[in-house]
Amino acid sequence: MLKNIKFESKYRDFGIKELGVKLARLQRMAQNLKMPALVIIEGWESSGQGNLIYNLVRELNPKYYDVKIFDKLSDNEKMYLEMTPYWINSPQKSNLQIFDKSYYYELFNKKEKDSVYKNYLEGINNFEKAMYDDYAIVVKFFIQISEKVQKNNIESYLDSDYKSLYVEKLDEDQNKHYDKYLKKFDSDIEKTNFDFAKWHILDGSDIKEASKEAIGILIESFEVGIERMMQKRENGERLNRVYKSERTPLDKIDLSKTLSEEDYDSILKKLQKRASELQLELYKQKISTILVFEGVDAAGKDGSIERLIKYMDPRMVKVHAISAPNEEENRYNYLWRFYKRLPKDGDMGIFSRSWYGRVMVERVEGFAEENEWERAYSEIQNFEREIYDHGSLIIKYFVMIDKDTQLKRFEDREEDPDKQYKITEEDWRNREKWDQYIAAMNEMLDRTSTKYSPWVIVEGNDKNYARIKVLKTFIEYAEKHLNED
Amino acid sequence: MLKNIKFESKYRDFGIKELGVKLARLQRMAQNLKMPALVIIEGWESSGQGNLIYNLVRELNPKYYDVKIFDKLSDNEKMYLEMTPYWINSPQKSNLQIFDKSYYYELFNKKEKDSVYKNYLEGINNFEKAMYDDYAIVVKFFIQISEKVQKNNIESYLDSDYKSLYVEKLDEDQNKHYDKYLKKFDSDIEKTNFDFAKWHILDGSDIKEASKEAIGILIESFEVGIERMMQKRENGERLNRVYKSERTPLDKIDLSKTLSEEDYDSILKKLQKRASELQLELYKQKISTILVFEGVDAAGKDGSIERLIKYMDPRMVKVHAISAPNEEENRYNYLWRFYKRLPKDGDMGIFSRSWYGRVMVERVEGFAEENEWERAYSEIQNFEREIYDHGSLIIKYFVMIDKDTQLKRFEDREEDPDKQYKITEEDWRNREKWDQYIAAMNEMLDRTSTKYSPWVIVEGNDKNYARIKVLKTFIEYAEKHLNED
Repeated sequence: MLKNIKFESKYRDFGIKELGVKLARLQRMAQNLKMPALVIIEGWESSGQGNLIYNLVRELNPKYYDVKIFDKLSDNEKMYLEMTPYWINSPQKSNLQIFDKSYYYELFNKKEKDSVYKNYLEGINNFEKAMYDDYAIVVKFFIQISEKVQKNNIESYLDSDYKSLYVEKLDEDQNKHYDKYLKKFDSDIEKTNFDFAKWHILDGSDIKEASKEAIGILIESFEVGIERMMQKRENGERLNRVYKSERTPLDKIDLSKTLSEEDYDSILKKLQKRASELQLELYKQKISTILVFEGVDAAGKDGSIERLIKYMDPRMVKVHAISAPNEEENRYNYLWRFYKRLPKDGDMGIFSRSWYGRVMVERVEGFAEENEWERAYSEIQNFEREIYDHGSLIIKYFVMIDKDTQLKRFEDREEDPDKQYKITEEDWRNREKWDQYIAAMNEMLDRTSTKYSPWVIVEGNDKNYARIKVLKTFIEYAEKHLNED
Repeated sequence: MLKNIKFESKYRDFGIKELGVKLARLQRMAQNLKMPALVIIEGWESSGQGNLIYNLVRELNPKYYDVKIFDKLSDNEKMYLEMTPYWINSPQKSNLQIFDKSYYYELFNKKEKDSVYKNYLEGINNFEKAMYDDYAIVVKFFIQISEKVQKNNIESYLDSDYKSLYVEKLDEDQNKHYDKYLKKFDSDIEKTNFDFAKWHILDGSDIKEASKEAIGILIESFEVGIERMMQKRENGERLNRVYKSERTPLDKIDLSKTLSEEDYDSILKKLQKRASELQLELYKQKISTILVFEGVDAAGKDGSIERLIKYMDPRMVKVHAISAPNEEENRYNYLWRFYKRLPKDGDMGIFSRSWYGRVMVERVEGFAEENEWERAYSEIQNFEREIYDHGSLIIKYFVMIDKDTQLKRFEDREEDPDKQYKITEEDWRNREKWDQYIAAMNEMLDRTSTKYSPWVIVEGNDKNYARIKVLKTFIEYAEKHLNED
């Protein structure tokens, strides 16, 4: 793609100022429609990215765009899932986010045979698809220059006052091995030229012309994006129910399983000690652990979590109680708040409720549209695949009790002053929709149990039994994961 | 303080489990009262901080506390105002935050004569006072051990499997130069033993006893804190209006100042270029710049900002449009969201409206209680003092127009389709309270104009005049700041 640059924009004869004003107007429109916009600027070193960005934003209201520079990731950023810094900095609804370099910078600098290269490819696909599905305007630019132009640019920067700001080792290395880099760029760009997020190659030999071209492309992208959004508002989304699961895994479980108080007492502490040893070993090996706890209300999720982490070091283990997203979180893709909470390498993040809210409470209560939660099954699979490929241990527990047991526990909670805080009106309301929730849970369990991230169903009527099963499963999976490496 | 440790807790004869249950109950109560809690754990290296934390939290609900480890700051964290990482991680209302090491770790490791030592001292005072004024429970522990106990601990860690996790160079260095460190700890602790946030020294020779003592102290701190909160809820806060300014700086300004279109055109671009050169020079010298824009509605703040930054590199300049705090921001001290937005060294942060909302809109509309906004004058002075002492350049612009000019601009905005988004019902409502706002603004200008952070009043009736004054003042202050260094 880099060898034959074609002009795409139909605005070639417009002045740059005129184009800027046009773009500013469209951006305000997108803002009113609460659409996010993401513009990615990549290119050769010393190709004039700074100038391009300056030209792009000059007519925009500085309150509504933000430029985030990603060149080298910090040591701290490197301790998280590959795509985390980009997710965290993704555009809010109504805002325009410019990435000055991005995950592509990481991709370009990784060899294809590196396992982490694959992680980036898959993470990038997931990220840009999620943006697109949220009706974001996603535009990716690559500034292409010849070996000679790059050489000239480097020389003129070196002559200026600010050479240390502009020229680094990589610039000179690229120029020295131009053909090698060109091949790599071309191949990576080809691989990430998705239908939902295409690349636009700019001719960097004249950065002013390239800027006009870029603004023209941005204008068209805004026009197309806004039209797509308007159509959705008028006609709704085309319903796209991929597959309705008929399987009902929850019907098959045996809730009569119990464990005597004696047996419980005799093994609890030993298992807890073992679990904490394993956590420390995971920490030493810099493997992060993600535990998900889902289940009907009062199934005993939190009690199981408390027993599981009893002897673990609280400095490396964090429990996240997930409820409805807040105002800020609502301005992003629903996975944003979970990327933000993923533990760093070596740490453990426990989610008491999780991203599965999308296909349970948000589905049942109508907070997500049918298309949104239908899409979520595969989005969640992709998300968990990223976590798995990063090398993390992920275990998902589903704690189940029957309807009578739930009633008994609700009543107990209302009577015990130390437990009253655990029961609310909402719990009673959810109980009335028991059957709808069970149907959603059955479909969820069926459709999101993957080889790399299976569900562990925990029979919860007997708390002793449930707590021991949670512990034993953690030990089993952790040992297996540690032995694999 | 470190040589004579006294037992403080009256709970010496209670079992550790019993104490934990008591603490958990109090924490739930504090949670219901929406009180934040901050527990700081400091002490000698190899003194058993991990064990202490483990004992502190074992009976608490893991969903409602969080442990944040601060040992070495990352390179990125070091590029911000000293206290930024701690402010960002301060406890939310209803939550218990444990700092495993903290700003004290930085303080202990700085020499008293270092200029940055003073910055920490002043920043710590401001931070802990702000927490206290927000009715947070603030408890600071220091684990004291003898040279011999430390030696034994280090040796036993070195014998264990996890020596690399526990023992670092600093541990051994402390033990080698025990007396020197002891003297430094003692002196720093003395200096930061504030009335509103006292130190508690724990005898680390028996970490289990020390833990019981710590939980006992925590219980008492929660009891005292909760009582203080209850009293406030019942009786309100004692009104504490320190000083009512009678000065009216806004009456004295000459709004008839104008600048002809010709003069404007002839110097605008030159000044803009000079401003962008200075920004780059500040960037090179790693000096961060904070610009505050306040003023009545439609005074022309945003237009002035746009002209000012016209030729600056958008990658280093960020404009923050500040409106009402969102749900998450409301769970913290009102300065939290501004600490979070301060630019890193070398960058420029422009605030279109700012922390001054506390003493303007929040005061006039009653969103803050009288005591809260009264306190804010000195809190803001302290905040800006921290910024100044960090080496940053701070300039505050107040753009003023008269009431007739405002009316004209409101009407213009309503008629121009490209400007309609700038005018809302709220603007008209605020206009009805013109006199109240002017009174609040006068008091603010009088009470927060300091030597290190003065207000620049900008006569705004004539937009040309205002824009040039903003540019010229920036140039003047930036040149002065650069020459001082």
